[in-house]
Amino acid sequence: MIGQVKKGYVRPLDIKHGRVDMSHGGGGRAMVQLITDLFANHLGNEYLAQGNDGTCLPPCTGRMVVSTDSHVVSPLFFPGGDIGCLSVHGTVNDVAVMGATPLYLTAGFILEEGFPLESLARIVESMARAAKAAGVKLVAGDTKVVEQGKGDGVFITTTGVGFLPEGVHLSGDLARPGDAVLLSGTLGDHGVAILSKRENLSFDAPILSDTAALNGLTAAMLASGAAIRVMRDPTRGGLAATLNEIAHQSGVGIHLDEAAIPIKPEVDAACELLGLDPLNIANEGKLVAICAAEDADRLLAAMRAHPQGQAAALIGKVVEDPNCFVQMKTRFGGRRMVDWLSGEQLPRIC
Amino acid sequence: MIGQVKKGYVRPLDIKHGRVDMSHGGGGRAMVQLITDLFANHLGNEYLAQGNDGTCLPPCTGRMVVSTDSHVVSPLFFPGGDIGCLSVHGTVNDVAVMGATPLYLTAGFILEEGFPLESLARIVESMARAAKAAGVKLVAGDTKVVEQGKGDGVFITTTGVGFLPEGVHLSGDLARPGDAVLLSGTLGDHGVAILSKRENLSFDAPILSDTAALNGLTAAMLASGAAIRVMRDPTRGGLAATLNEIAHQSGVGIHLDEAAIPIKPEVDAACELLGLDPLNIANEGKLVAICAAEDADRLLAAMRAHPQGQAAALIGKVVEDPNCFVQMKTRFGGRRMVDWLSGEQLPRIC
Repeated sequence: MIGQVKKGYVRPLDIKHGRVDMSHGGGGRAMVQLITDLFANHLGNEYLAQGNDGTCLPPCTGRMVVSTDSHVVSPLFFPGGDIGCLSVHGTVNDVAVMGATPLYLTAGFILEEGFPLESLARIVESMARAAKAAGVKLVAGDTKVVEQGKGDGVFITTTGVGFLPEGVHLSGDLARPGDAVLLSGTLGDHGVAILSKRENLSFDAPILSDTAALNGLTAAMLASGAAIRVMRDPTRGGLAATLNEIAHQSGVGIHLDEAAIPIKPEVDAACELLGLDPLNIANEGKLVAICAAEDADRLLAAMRAHPQGQAAALIGKVVEDPNCFVQMKTRFGGRRMVDWLSGEQLPRIC
Repeated sequence: MIGQVKKGYVRPLDIKHGRVDMSHGGGGRAMVQLITDLFANHLGNEYLAQGNDGTCLPPCTGRMVVSTDSHVVSPLFFPGGDIGCLSVHGTVNDVAVMGATPLYLTAGFILEEGFPLESLARIVESMARAAKAAGVKLVAGDTKVVEQGKGDGVFITTTGVGFLPEGVHLSGDLARPGDAVLLSGTLGDHGVAILSKRENLSFDAPILSDTAALNGLTAAMLASGAAIRVMRDPTRGGLAATLNEIAHQSGVGIHLDEAAIPIKPEVDAACELLGLDPLNIANEGKLVAICAAEDADRLLAAMRAHPQGQAAALIGKVVEDPNCFVQMKTRFGGRRMVDWLSGEQLPRIC
């Protein structure tokens, strides 16, 4: 429960100097204090204020879309974002790429004993800003505390609920040979930002995570009227994993054109230095869309007209291939397989 | 994503001898393997099989109720249950005590590197059984892996979605002086079961957790037609915390009768031995209900007619009290305050 409990019988938290202790997860006054002073203060709204075990939402009609993601990113604060806004964006985007309008979020916090309350407050403020910007409301929450050494600062699991507009039906198994493959912007920014912070690397131009909510962009894309088959955000595993998934779900192959894939020069350089392939790196504010070939120009124009799709590009096409291979024409004119990795390239990227 | 990805290009897991490794959270083939062989195998259904970032649910109408809970119980396996079924029951119950019919669950897993796959399989099987018994479907999921020493085996965050029948409106702020306070069964079983396992205590009669889904019981209670104001399950913080919350939300006092509160003799004895107050101990299969006094007999009869309410009892009444105190007439005829604890009595109880 993250709800409103009457104030006046718990002392305010010392957010500046205090730390999370086991009592903050115990269901007693200390937990109420944490909830009231920190969570309700920043995230409070009419739904959280109900203060019951579950939250009643207004009457709804239509096809609901739900998605959930646990966030364990390390470090918790990284160039361009933090686990708070990331936990909002990640789940909002999973609902949005289904074509749905995200409305509600829930959040479960697992806090490690000893975590500074000031850092927790920064995270919660960041969540609140991200939720407001995305137009979603945090309607239910929960807080647990584990002993030092049994967690890692903060883990946040968010669940998103949205509704599908009439007539919208997107799915990973709807790609057909001939379809166009579009990407909304540059690849690799999030993964490189995380890694640079983790490894204490500094580049001439700072590389920021692209973490952002994509529901404005997806709404603009749907409004274009283009026959979109699939949208998906290439997070863990990067574009390579996302396209391999779609290829297998649809029973098709995909041909990419390396020269058409937008990558920032500084990200490209960092990947070279670090021995990473930008196609395997997680993104947190990009999406790939597959649409009917004849609608590609229209969809691309709609994407480029949106602030989050300015660097959108047509990067390839769907082909017939019983092996469901994803292949790429390289900048040097050759062709290579775009496989997905067996294991992890960058653990705890989101 | 816990979805269906085409089989045939990942080797099966060695569930008997294998362990979770970082690659299982990396978004690559190893993660797909874990999802396919373990999660989809036990939890699979038509919704998970969609295999997209979000899950599309059938058209719905009505007032939705959502609730979320992170589960960090230690130990993961305890007498009468485990974190798997607990993570289903906890969230199903939070939706059910709102008067709603729980339909869907999502689950976010945070796994610690090195955790035995065999234990994970037992947990997932237990979740699947619990979900089936409660009549809810797991419709979306996510898996993350953290390094050894940054987690504690398995944490599971579940989110529940349900719908309110026409005319049902329960809330913690609806208790009124004169109302009856009912409890569905014995107190303290879950907390004592956890503690006995944690401390390696053995009693003559084994004490089992009461972890169970309460949506059958709540449906029977609503069907009785009694004017129920509030239902709530006394988990963390126990009955004492739950009644203090309600008293403050409603601006009333509550008087309990200790002699009427059902407690198993072996749980009572264990509490005595361990210096615990059963009123502060978490329960995972009990609920407290507050209803109009004139409907108390009817509601009690409905509860007792249900397998999960056989030991139900009228344990007190709501009174006028500007201080919102919860007080109890003791077995010896005195009166004591039932305060809620400031910190935790038993950390990581759920």
